[in-house]
Amino acid sequence: MKDFVIIGNKAVNGGKISLNDLPGSAGRMDVLCRCVTSALFISFGMRRDINVWLVLKGEPGPDKIVRFNGETMRSLNPDERSSGSLIQKALLVNASEEEKQSTPGVFVRYGNLAQLLSEFEENETKRPLFYLKEDGADVLEMIQKQESALLLENGVYILGDNQGVFEEDEKTIEDRGATKISVGPISLLSSQCITLILNALDRASAETADK
Amino acid sequence: MKDFVIIGNKAVNGGKISLNDLPGSAGRMDVLCRCVTSALFISFGMRRDINVWLVLKGEPGPDKIVRFNGETMRSLNPDERSSGSLIQKALLVNASEEEKQSTPGVFVRYGNLAQLLSEFEENETKRPLFYLKEDGADVLEMIQKQESALLLENGVYILGDNQGVFEEDEKTIEDRGATKISVGPISLLSSQCITLILNALDRASAETADK
Repeated sequence: MKDFVIIGNKAVNGGKISLNDLPGSAGRMDVLCRCVTSALFISFGMRRDINVWLVLKGEPGPDKIVRFNGETMRSLNPDERSSGSLIQKALLVNASEEEKQSTPGVFVRYGNLAQLLSEFEENETKRPLFYLKEDGADVLEMIQKQESALLLENGVYILGDNQGVFEEDEKTIEDRGATKISVGPISLLSSQCITLILNALDRASAETADK
Repeated sequence: MKDFVIIGNKAVNGGKISLNDLPGSAGRMDVLCRCVTSALFISFGMRRDINVWLVLKGEPGPDKIVRFNGETMRSLNPDERSSGSLIQKALLVNASEEEKQSTPGVFVRYGNLAQLLSEFEENETKRPLFYLKEDGADVLEMIQKQESALLLENGVYILGDNQGVFEEDEKTIEDRGATKISVGPISLLSSQCITLILNALDRASAETADK
């Protein structure tokens, strides 16, 4: 299982979002939609062993978490409007602290980044956290080493949106001992980083299978 | 300079396309929009040394080619609707065999894949063609070899859309001696392949710069 946590700094968390204006009035929801697509889609199907957690930190508050679960996902297409429409439906659900399913494979609840990361720690198998950051260790080099490859395969990957990760959230992430990783020499879109992480993992799995 | 050629098998080439239905009525134009974003955008800016050529092979015909030129591009955002809107404007131009600029950095003309590839050959510096295909040579391995790295850096990359590349187009590509390359063990979305190619090139440039 792999999990991607994307921090939507301005992503709205209530009301009816406009599918015709995901970048503007929905608070750069387009960034999050592209992350969902890169994490879940391959050419002829879907990655079933992945959860995408969108932390919506914008207006009107409080923060909500929308989860896209690859295993049970239905009615999702790779275009931004398709994931946007499922987020729209999730935000119209009467949310509580308990996760509720809004459409098949999409879940919503009140919650923030700190709570979410604590849950990964409290999991019966404590999950290794990875924080995408320009000065992190290169994921392609890490995957060559057996001990880090095992961790990466079971990793929770935390990424910012177009604004990056603000100081308070960075502290939350670092306090939990997340390992900083990077995907190459140039700072890229969050969705592109996800593609690169998954490709590194795909390459590692294929090598193991060859042996 | 690097060029990406994306074959839109059903992408419409005339009339006013609907930005609210890029996948359906515009013939999977969303696939092409995502390719534009992955080819041109990095985290805080745009790749200026890239052209994206969209070959629109759908209705009503004849084929048109829309070019996104990184160097002169303006008014483009990473969301699908943004590139979709520039394609929409390009398709409303009274096209001819000569390229016309529809908005800053976007050009349109009548033309098909065979013509486009011939032009790359007739270029004063004949450009090396690469064809994305599952059984191709791995781009990360190729980039390690100096002679292929030089070619890749100056490459024209040809990709299919969600339907792949049909037999006739594949023949056109192979007749021109394109080298088959791949990006990993799993067949991915065209936009994801572009991200992976550019990351391999970024890594190679950074290594060269380090030396």
